[in-house]
Amino acid sequence: MKKFYATATVRFKKSVLEPQGKAIQLSLAEKGSHEFTLVRVGKYIEVELEAPSVDEAKQKMEKIAGDMLYNDVMETCEIHVSERKGLAPSGAEG
Amino acid sequence: MKKFYATATVRFKKSVLEPQGKAIQLSLAEKGSHEFTLVRVGKYIEVELEAPSVDEAKQKMEKIAGDMLYNDVMETCEIHVSERKGLAPSGAEG
Repeated sequence: MKKFYATATVRFKKSVLEPQGKAIQLSLAEKGSHEFTLVRVGKYIEVELEAPSVDEAKQKMEKIAGDMLYNDVMETCEIHVSERKGLAPSGAEG
Repeated sequence: MKKFYATATVRFKKSVLEPQGKAIQLSLAEKGSHEFTLVRVGKYIEVELEAPSVDEAKQKMEKIAGDMLYNDVMETCEIHVSERKGLAPSGAEG
């Protein structure tokens, strides 16, 4: 078995109102900072796991992500798995 | 003014117990998945803002981050700013 470092970046789908981010944005506007045109808060989940291979580590992550890390009706989840800590970028889709 | 895309990845400091991640890890262990040796949940904040330059955009982000996006006693915050959406990696420190 080998050790893998994974990240799961969970974000609300664009069509979903994200209240926490909206509250931050409104609070900034009240303080006169209107230059912040969008604020959205998601989750950044770091996981260390053991698996025979990186593919199996990714499968395990996808399984637990679907089961308990995000709600696929309202959220998207981007998973990265790496053998080295800190090399898993996240949330970098366009 | 130009539009910038920023991310702030907020994570609990290593010395701080992160209860949500611990709960996920225990739940996985109860289901027999003991290969997950660490789970930590942080925040992934996406911001769109306008600024004259990327340096000023970064300064604005650092200001609001300190003010309202994270608690520097218990958390760390990694900020990335880019002119193009989706190119701001996050949480990628070693």
